[in-house]
This record gives sequence, C-alpha cells and structure tokens, in this order.
Amino acid sequence: MPLDKAAVRSVLDRVRSENRSSLTAPEAKTVCDAYGIPVPKEGLATSADAAVKLAEGMGFPVVMKIVSPDILHKTEAGGVIVGVASGDAARRAYDTIVASAKKYKANASIVGVQIQQQLATAQEVIVGAVTDQSFGKIIAFGLGGVLVEVLKDITFRLAPASRDDALSMLDGIAAAEILKGVRGAQPVDRNALATIIENVSKLVTDFPEISEVDLNPIFARPDGATAVDARIVVDFDPPEPRHRPSHDDIVRAMNRIMRPEAVAVIGASSEEGKIGNSVMKNLINGGYQGKIYPINPSADEILGLKAYKTVGEVPGEIDVAVFAIPAKFVAGALKECGAKKIPGAVLIPSGFAETGNVEGQLEIQRIGREQNIRLMGPNIYGFYYTPKHLCATFCTAYDYQGKVALSSQSGGVGMAIIGFSRSAKMGVSAIVGLGNKADIDEDDLLTFFEQDENTEAVAMHMEDLKDGRAFAEVAKRVSKKKPVMVLKAGRTALGSKAAASHTGALAGNDKVYDDVLRQSGVIRARGLNELLAFARAVPILPTPKGENVVIITGAGGSGVLLSDSCVDNGLGLMKFPPDLDEAFKKFIPPFGASGNPVDITGGEPPKTYQNTIRLGLEDDRIHALILGYWHTIVTPPMVFARLTAEVVEEFRKRGINKPVVASLAGDVEVEEASEYLFDHGIPAYPYNCETPVAVLGAKYRWARGAGLI
Amino acid sequence: MPLDKAAVRSVLDRVRSENRSSLTAPEAKTVCDAYGIPVPKEGLATSADAAVKLAEGMGFPVVMKIVSPDILHKTEAGGVIVGVASGDAARRAYDTIVASAKKYKANASIVGVQIQQQLATAQEVIVGAVTDQSFGKIIAFGLGGVLVEVLKDITFRLAPASRDDALSMLDGIAAAEILKGVRGAQPVDRNALATIIENVSKLVTDFPEISEVDLNPIFARPDGATAVDARIVVDFDPPEPRHRPSHDDIVRAMNRIMRPEAVAVIGASSEEGKIGNSVMKNLINGGYQGKIYPINPSADEILGLKAYKTVGEVPGEIDVAVFAIPAKFVAGALKECGAKKIPGAVLIPSGFAETGNVEGQLEIQRIGREQNIRLMGPNIYGFYYTPKHLCATFCTAYDYQGKVALSSQSGGVGMAIIGFSRSAKMGVSAIVGLGNKADIDEDDLLTFFEQDENTEAVAMHMEDLKDGRAFAEVAKRVSKKKPVMVLKAGRTALGSKAAASHTGALAGNDKVYDDVLRQSGVIRARGLNELLAFARAVPILPTPKGENVVIITGAGGSGVLLSDSCVDNGLGLMKFPPDLDEAFKKFIPPFGASGNPVDITGGEPPKTYQNTIRLGLEDDRIHALILGYWHTIVTPPMVFARLTAEVVEEFRKRGINKPVVASLAGDVEVEEASEYLFDHGIPAYPYNCETPVAVLGAKYRWARGAGLI
Repeated sequence: MPLDKAAVRSVLDRVRSENRSSLTAPEAKTVCDAYGIPVPKEGLATSADAAVKLAEGMGFPVVMKIVSPDILHKTEAGGVIVGVASGDAARRAYDTIVASAKKYKANASIVGVQIQQQLATAQEVIVGAVTDQSFGKIIAFGLGGVLVEVLKDITFRLAPASRDDALSMLDGIAAAEILKGVRGAQPVDRNALATIIENVSKLVTDFPEISEVDLNPIFARPDGATAVDARIVVDFDPPEPRHRPSHDDIVRAMNRIMRPEAVAVIGASSEEGKIGNSVMKNLINGGYQGKIYPINPSADEILGLKAYKTVGEVPGEIDVAVFAIPAKFVAGALKECGAKKIPGAVLIPSGFAETGNVEGQLEIQRIGREQNIRLMGPNIYGFYYTPKHLCATFCTAYDYQGKVALSSQSGGVGMAIIGFSRSAKMGVSAIVGLGNKADIDEDDLLTFFEQDENTEAVAMHMEDLKDGRAFAEVAKRVSKKKPVMVLKAGRTALGSKAAASHTGALAGNDKVYDDVLRQSGVIRARGLNELLAFARAVPILPTPKGENVVIITGAGGSGVLLSDSCVDNGLGLMKFPPDLDEAFKKFIPPFGASGNPVDITGGEPPKTYQNTIRLGLEDDRIHALILGYWHTIVTPPMVFARLTAEVVEEFRKRGINKPVVASLAGDVEVEEASEYLFDHGIPAYPYNCETPVAVLGAKYRWARGAGLI
Repeated sequence: MPLDKAAVRSVLDRVRSENRSSLTAPEAKTVCDAYGIPVPKEGLATSADAAVKLAEGMGFPVVMKIVSPDILHKTEAGGVIVGVASGDAARRAYDTIVASAKKYKANASIVGVQIQQQLATAQEVIVGAVTDQSFGKIIAFGLGGVLVEVLKDITFRLAPASRDDALSMLDGIAAAEILKGVRGAQPVDRNALATIIENVSKLVTDFPEISEVDLNPIFARPDGATAVDARIVVDFDPPEPRHRPSHDDIVRAMNRIMRPEAVAVIGASSEEGKIGNSVMKNLINGGYQGKIYPINPSADEILGLKAYKTVGEVPGEIDVAVFAIPAKFVAGALKECGAKKIPGAVLIPSGFAETGNVEGQLEIQRIGREQNIRLMGPNIYGFYYTPKHLCATFCTAYDYQGKVALSSQSGGVGMAIIGFSRSAKMGVSAIVGLGNKADIDEDDLLTFFEQDENTEAVAMHMEDLKDGRAFAEVAKRVSKKKPVMVLKAGRTALGSKAAASHTGALAGNDKVYDDVLRQSGVIRARGLNELLAFARAVPILPTPKGENVVIITGAGGSGVLLSDSCVDNGLGLMKFPPDLDEAFKKFIPPFGASGNPVDITGGEPPKTYQNTIRLGLEDDRIHALILGYWHTIVTPPMVFARLTAEVVEEFRKRGINKPVVASLAGDVEVEEASEYLFDHGIPAYPYNCETPVAVLGAKYRWARGAGLI
C-alpha cells in the first residue's frame, strides 16, 4: 500500500507548532494508518444507532469509552465498558455510558462514545525505533511480555530495513521458535510482522524528526498483526551529523597519506629520546624510499637530511606531515600545512580531548576542515605501511610484509599488535593508530583498504564508532570483498564505563553493535587474543566453497573437543553418505571410528594421515578439513607437518584449495610442527583444540556474510 | 511436617504388584500429600449436601467432575462443570452432573462427584526429578510455559537437595528475576517452592524405585505454591550401581599405586621401539629410586636389571605392575598379580572396549575385583608421579616438579598436557591417563590427591563420569581444600556424539554436568586451552580475601579490555571510596583516569607503576590486582617485570599475599617479561587481555565455592 507522507507531515507540523515532544494517541494512530501499521479499528459514535453501526462494522467484541474533555478518569465515571458482544449490547452500553457520565459530572461536555475493536489475546511482540548517537535510526524487534523484559531478548537493525532484514529479525531473537508455533500453536503471520518492521523503519527514515517509535505490544496472530499501543516521540532539533567527505575525496586523500611520495616530520630532532628523533630514525631505518623532509626551525640538517624551518620552505610537494611537537604548537603548524596544500597530518601529540582539552581538539578539527587536511589522531603512535617500507611512528620499526591491515584506537593495543605480529611472523600491510579520531576514523581507513591492492583483510580494534552508520555502510560493501574483523572493546557495562572515562566516548549499547556489525558482514572477535588469532589465520585460509566440514583425527579425545568447538563456532560436521564412509574406512583400522570425526586412531603410520587427508581434499563434497594430530613415535610431529603440507600443496597446484586447520597434541616438538604448517598456509596450534576451529569458523562467518557460500 | 513414608510404600507396593510403571493421578496425589507437596484440594461427594460442604471447605471456585468407572469421557457425558462459585451453584451442579451422567449412560455405576479446588492462574514453574545413569537421582527446577520450553531455562541439583540447594535453584535460572516480581508483580513464595524441591528430592532419595517425578505446572503464588499436575514413574529393576570401594581402601591402594616402592613391568623388553622397552627406559632414566622388576619369560636381564619370568618369582613385595603386553595376555597376567597380592595394575594395552572388545574388558574388570587389584586403564599412556621421579609410561620422561596434578581420559589430550607442561615449565605432581576407566576413575584419583601432600590443585580432562555421584561427593569435599578444575569434553550434541563413538560412554546432558560440577565446587574450563591455563596459574595464585579487584594500567585501551574480561569472568571492579581515589591520584598525571581502572597513562616512569602497585597491595580494602602494562622506552618490559616482582615479593615477606595478574602490551620483549613475572608468582601474558583475568576469575570461583570469601 502507498504510504501517506502528507498525513504524517501534517501531524508533525501540528506537534511542532505546539512545541510538543510527543504525539497524542489519536495522532499516533493517524501516523500508523498513514504508514500501513495496523492498529485496532476505532471510531466515534455520537448516537446509540451510530455506535451499533460502527461496532457491527469492525466486528464484536468491542470496547466503548466516553469521550469528553471534562472527564479525565473515564473508568471512575462509569465511562468504559469492555467486551460488548452484540448490537443490542452496544446500544445499551452507549446509553449507560452517557447516562453515567452525566451523573458523574452534570455539566460535562460530551463529545460522544469511542468504539474500539477488542482484540483477542495473541502472541505479544514489540517493534520500536530509536535514534542512536552513532548509528542514527535503528529499529528493534523482540517478544513482548515479562519474560522477554527480563531476558532482554531483542534484536536491532539499521533503518531503513529491507524486507530481508525484517524477516531476519524475526529469526534474530533467542526465542524465535515461538513465532513458528510451538506445542501445537499456529505460527504467527511473519509477513504481517515484517511489513510493520519495514514500515516503521521507512517512517523514521522519511521523517528524521521522529526520534522514537514504540509499538508495544503488537498482537501477532496467524492471520495478521495489530499494534495495540503506539508511542511516538519527536526531536525537531537533532545534533548535527559528523562531517563526511565524499568517497572520492576520502580515497584521494587516504592514498596520499598512506602511500606518500614525500613525508615531512614536523618537530624532527637529532636528539636521542625525542619523539621527533624516533620518527626520523624509523623513517630512515625502516627503508622508506620516498622523500623525507625534517622540519625544525633551529636545525640545518637532521640525521644527514637537509632540515627546513617550516613546511612552506620545502621545495617539492608533501603528501603527509607527521607531527612530533607539543599539543600547543599543533594548530599553528597545521595552518602552515594548509598553506602548503598538504592533504594529511599524522598527529602523534597527546594533550587533546583525552586529557580534557576538548577545546584544543575542536580547534584543530576546525582548522583541518578549513584547510582541507585530513587528520589522523591526535594521541596516536602513528602508522606503518609496509609495501612502502614506511614507519611513520615513534615505535620500533616493523617491516614484515603481509596481507592483513590492522588498526587500533588505543596505543597500548597497537603495541600489542606490533609485538604479536613480530612474534608470530604475521606479515601485515599496515598498522594504524586512530587515537582520538578527531577526523580520520575506521570508515576512512576501510575505504582506503578496500582499494589497496596490498591489503586482503582488515582487523580493527575500536572502543566506539564516531559515525557507526558510515562505518556500517562501508563495512557492508568492503566485507563482500575482504574480511573485516573487529574487536569492539567496552562490550560490557564495566568495560564501556572504562571506555567512557578513557576516550570521552559514550559506548553504545553492545547489542546494537553486535547486530549492526553482523548485518554489515563484519566478523566480531571477543577479545584481543581472538582478534590477533583471526588476523593471523583468516587471510591465509582459502575461502570454503560449502558447509561440509570434516574432522580427521589421530586422537579420539581431540575429536571430541574439536567437535565441541565446531558447535561453539557455528560449524556443522558433514554427515557422510555411505560411499564416503566406506572410502574412509578403507584407510583406518577396523576399530577406528567411522563417520565424522574420522578417528584414524593413535599409533598409525604417516600413510594413514596421508590417505585420509588426500581423500578429504579429493572428494568435492567435502569443503574444509580440521586435523587432530596425536604425537607418536610412528608419526612424529615434523613428519606429520611435512606430509600434510605436501599433500595440501599438491592439491593447491591442481587448483583444489580447501581450508585446512590443525590441532597438535603432543610433546614440545608439536610447536615447531605447528609453525611449519602455518608457514605452509595451514593454521596450526599446539595443545589447543579451540583456536583452529575458531579461525575456521571466522572464515566461514565471513564467507557466508559475503554471500560466497 | 513429618513425611508419611508408609503411605508412599503402600502405593508403591500396589503399583509393583500390578506390574505398572507409573502411578495413577489419585496415587500421585496420595504420594504428594504424604511428602508435603501441595496439590489442589479435592474430595468425593456422594450427595449434593456433601458437595456443598466440601466446596465450602476448600473455597470457591471449584471444578466438579463425575466419578464413574463406566464413564471414560467425562466432558462428553456432561460430567464436568468448571467455575462453580457458590454453595447454591455447587448444589445445582451436583444434580446436573448426576442427571447428565444417567442420561448419557443409564446403567452407569455412579460413585459420586469429585470436587476440586479451581486455582487462579499464577506464575507457572516446574519441579521434576529424574534418574541419571551417572549422577543417580537429580532434581530439576524451571519456569513453566512455552518460552521456557523454547529457551530451555532449567537448573539441576543432585538429590537430596538441601534447603540452601533448593533456594539456590530459584536463583539458578536465567529468568530468576521473574520470581522476585517484575513490573509491579508480587514475588512468589520462595519458601513454598524450596519446600517442594526439598520434598521431591527426599521422596526420590527415600524411594529409589521412583525413577521420575514431574510436577508440571506448579502454580507459584505470593502466598504458596500448588502442583496442579503430578506424574510419577517407577522402575523396580534399576541397573546395578558401579562398585565403589570404601574410602580407606581407595586411599590405601592408590597410595601404593601412585607412590610405589617397587614396580614390576610385565612385558619389559630390551628391544628398541617396544612399549615394554620405553616403559623400562622411562622408569630408569626418569630417576625412580624404588625397585624395578622387569617381567619377561624369555630374558634374564633387561637394561641391566635382573628379569623374572613371572611376578610370582619376584622375591619382594610389588606395589604396582605396569602392563606392556597385548590385550589377550592381560587376563592371565592379572591373575598372577592377584596371587602375588599386587594391589594395582597399570593397563597400557589397548584392544578392549574402545575397539569393541567389551567382553574382554568385563573379564579383566571381574578378575580385578576377585583378586583385589585396582586397575588403571586399559588403553592408557600410563602415569607420572614426579615427587618419586616415577614415569610409568611409554611416553617421554617428564620430571619437572610442581603442585598441580593432571589427568586425562584421552591419550591425545594427555600428550598435549605433557607438551604444554614442558613448554610452559609448568611443574606438576602427577599426570595420569585414565582411558577406558574399567576401574580407577576420577573419584579414586581425587581421593588420592586429596591426601597427597605434593598436590595442591587438580586439573582433569574427562569425556564422561562412570559414577558422577561418587565424583560429585568427593569433589565437593576435596574442592574445599584444593582447587579442582575440569574440562568436560562432549559439551555439545556434536561433541558428545563424538565422545559416544569414541569411548562407548553415553555423555550426559551437559546442563546436568554444569550444575552438578558447580554445586561440587569444581571450576569448569571451556576448552583444553583454558584448562591448561588454569592448571598453570591457579595453583600459584594466592587465595583472595575478598571481592575487591583493582585494575592498574598504563594503557587505557587495555583497561577497557580487562574490564570486559572481568565481567566475562564474574569479577566486579571495586568502587573506590574517596580517600582511596585521592591516594591513587597522587601518583598519576592529572589527565590519568581516576577511579577503577586506575589509568596511570602511557609514558610513565617505573616509579608510577611502583607507587600504584604498592598502594594496591598496601591498602587492605583491595583484594586483587590486575596490571595492564604498556611497553614504552621510559619503562621497558623487563624493568616493569623486575619492579613488579620486587614489590610483590616485598609484600609477601610482610605477609601480604594478594593475587596479582598481568597483561603485557608491547613489542616482543614483553614475552620474556611475562615469563619472568610467571616465575615470580605473577601469572602474566603477552598480547592478551583475556587470559590473565580468566585465571584470576577461576581462582575466585574456587575460593567462593570453598567458602573462603
């Protein structure tokens, strides 16, 4: 049905003119009618005959209520009769109500009697919309009633929600089964509910001044759904949205910042221990091949490079200026960068919003906008971009190239990323500190990494999203091509309190983050540990072509733990067709467990591992392998590692590239074997049945979200 | 009220004599009455006068139903009237029912009319009891209704349940808040519900032949609770319980097995690669100082030790015989061990139940019982007991002594334990393989470790419990003194299916395990990874004296992640009194975050870490510290590690021994620093904000369960 925007506009104009912040019940009904949201039928009768006619039109039973500006407490006045079940009863009720009202207040002005459809009890659900500081308009769906209020079983999506979004919400609550009909109950009308969700989300999108909608309860029946109560709140003076440059502007500026041909270091220094000295050393020793311009008013040369008093004196173009000066000098230097048309500033200095200097941060933000300079930071360690051997940071140099880009809001977490990367020999394309995010934030970075041919996956630590909607939009697009993994800190009330005191950011309701990130195809990590594990393994795992996962294990005990992990990570074990079961059985001892997990039993020679892994790769009904190795003298760890890498490599050469992960149980030699496997594209972990499955599960979540399986 | 056992006995005798497996509704009512379980009041009226009197006695409204052996379909016969609200109505209803019944079936024998209290709708709950194969009688509590059936929100305890157990069950469901009254509803009568739980658990304990009780629904009101429907199932032929030696017998035998003075190796061999050769080498090279008797019918000497043809030929006493012979020879050799009065056999051989040879396993089980030999295994790697330098295993020798004992049901997991222990330098007192658990199982081991002065904590991997009740009893006692940590594999449906095919064990409902293990004070690990982390850290952490946890961090970002982890692990952050906040503020820069986490900010010198850690240890309102370190040039990793260890050590010398854990963010040097801290009694982890808090949380869970805080 067509939506009647004019009707809503007229209601909102009246509300605005009367300086109200919420709609009356009749106004809310008008809005619901205009946007195809079913509400109980109702009408005003000014005679007993009219009451009968109205009631017959909407169907019995009905509720009848006095309408009088002079009577506030309708029930007390004898002005409400429920369960009116026939025409006769409606006629009698009309007369009774009017008589009671007159008796209650002789001089009351009586407008008439409201007749309202009385709905049979049904499954209660809730649909709502709220305006989130970071995500803007979001829509919520949950079951009604006391249990759900206690269990907080609710799901969110960005508005506007598509039909698919709306339907996915019905499955997005823990108690979803109830809507499908349990214990012989009929299922509710999913289409009717989806339509309400869609239309509410259109309503708040079309009219941004509607800040909140609460349809609670909605009676969901097998043949429709009706919102029994509707509450609508408005805000005609919303906060200004965060500035967002165009996509092309972002790409142009970010490419110059991240892959510069010339870098200026403002505050470059020859003095050991100074940040401006560390940055210079890292640029030079890191192997950066572009031009480096030290800027220092009182030096002619720094570390063998000609120094300039200001950026203005530099003869050539500068792509990015790295700031290594105290906070108070930043604004002035930024203006000079503007004059020199430098498109990006990396603001290492702290002393802005994080220390309470909000004014100072607003000032540099303003200068950045005026001068058309994108700002990274302030309060950051800088960034690395390994394809250019660029270490624009005061931290230690890092130059092990790989496919994954990482970012962190916090410097401490950034240092952990650097340490882990080096220790695990995890090659990276970039590591970026975002700090206070006065300007450049996660969606700018994602937009850059999307088109950066050196980056195949992105892992981000964040405490808040300054513009969650922008991030969700970009992530939804990017995650179709490259895995986007996120650690959102401040998941819990305690954590988000710590986040608030740390960054001045008000962390949003975590369930909103959870649902919106999932809706955007983002893989969420539960902790730093997991983010790093994902970042290391997900990019090297090939994309699975289907859901059929098979465990091949030498240790039955590992098979059990790996199976548990599969469930924990949303993976199902393939049910073997008889021929496949027979095929595996040929290779394993008669007492080995057939079926999935394939338990080849301990004490088997290398050949048994080889044969079963080969079969797992060969059969195109199988899409991914989880290996459980058990250290024995017959097949020592490095023998297992080499044979596995060899078989996998052989199949890759034949164009068969399935994800394979491994859990190694054994004495310390399994550590070396795990490293060997990792180096050969097989994520492998010693003494651990959880992480191999978690990283495979992450790859699957990504592939599903990207529509690849 | 006193329980009427005789009434129940008489009902059960009748049921048994009639060969029935369930009770009729009146029988169930009799049982409920006898055990103080309120059911709706009811009575049989044989006249209208009697009906009025009965109804008045129980209070209106009532339900009235024809009672006639000739009328099965009461409603069809017009024999049921509900909502009878007065004496007059009861009189009329009696006459109507009898008349209708006669009209329906003229020759029906009419016994009378049943009058039953009609209860107002109330909060529905469920109390049940079932007989679990491993745990015996267990009692269940949950909310009734469709939502809970879908959400499976239910909790279990071993029967008999104490009053405290019963009350804890009311808080043990996710929707517990509902019982306390939400949205203005009155709370239900907790005492009434606890009484029902207690009494049902007494009922099934007193009468083991009652295999199942299902009170569903129970109407829980603010002033009482009534079981509306009661279903009781009986089993007069239950399976025989698992044999269990007396506590003293277990201790005596286990001490001789685990700490022997003399070990025989049956199947000892000089031939490289044979299991009997590996066992001999491990015994000798491991440094075992007791007597070693190689048994081999065709050798005079093995590895320089005199060999014997049978154990019977050995001159002295033997405490334990390690079997390294094929399965088919085990039974015969066991009998010889019996004749020699050897109290224990370590059955390394496989080829029993795990390969389908159930008969063979039952045979050796029988021989063990007859000959009074406790059996470890079969199908195991053996065991280690480091205080005696004893490696009774074919795996590699291990001799790094420590306080934690570990066991595994699976050999593969056992090898992972050994590898991890060696790699992490985790000292152990024992590592034991339990395999098929034909005899010795986890409760025997726990009973041994309880009194073993070399063991201060126990970590166990298990796939099932052959006698869950015995384990729970022992664990409840032991966990009061020493932390007991358990990884129960087969948590999930997939995992338990894998467990079933692997061990022939039917893994129980995981929620039962979860609740019973918690009730027994056991700390449950979610994966192998976590079990090993717990095993390494929990024994070295001192026991906290209270719940006040404080985070001190150099990286605000770590503070947020550590706070999230606190919530995940059931830890709350102490709310600072003003004086404590002031005291911390003195040591940190003005822009550092006061409150908890204490954010000392990055770039601080060693003194700041020192001062704040010192304050955290000094102030006796603080009970545990979580440190978040951020690698900087000002305070490098090893400087932080040394100063932290020094301060902690200083306070330990003063008798102040609080648990301290650390998360280290930084470049690779944080790995060495973490190891240093671990060596000094401070569990520390690089690049990881989750594990430090998880191990502290495990220690807290234990301390709470043991009643120490």
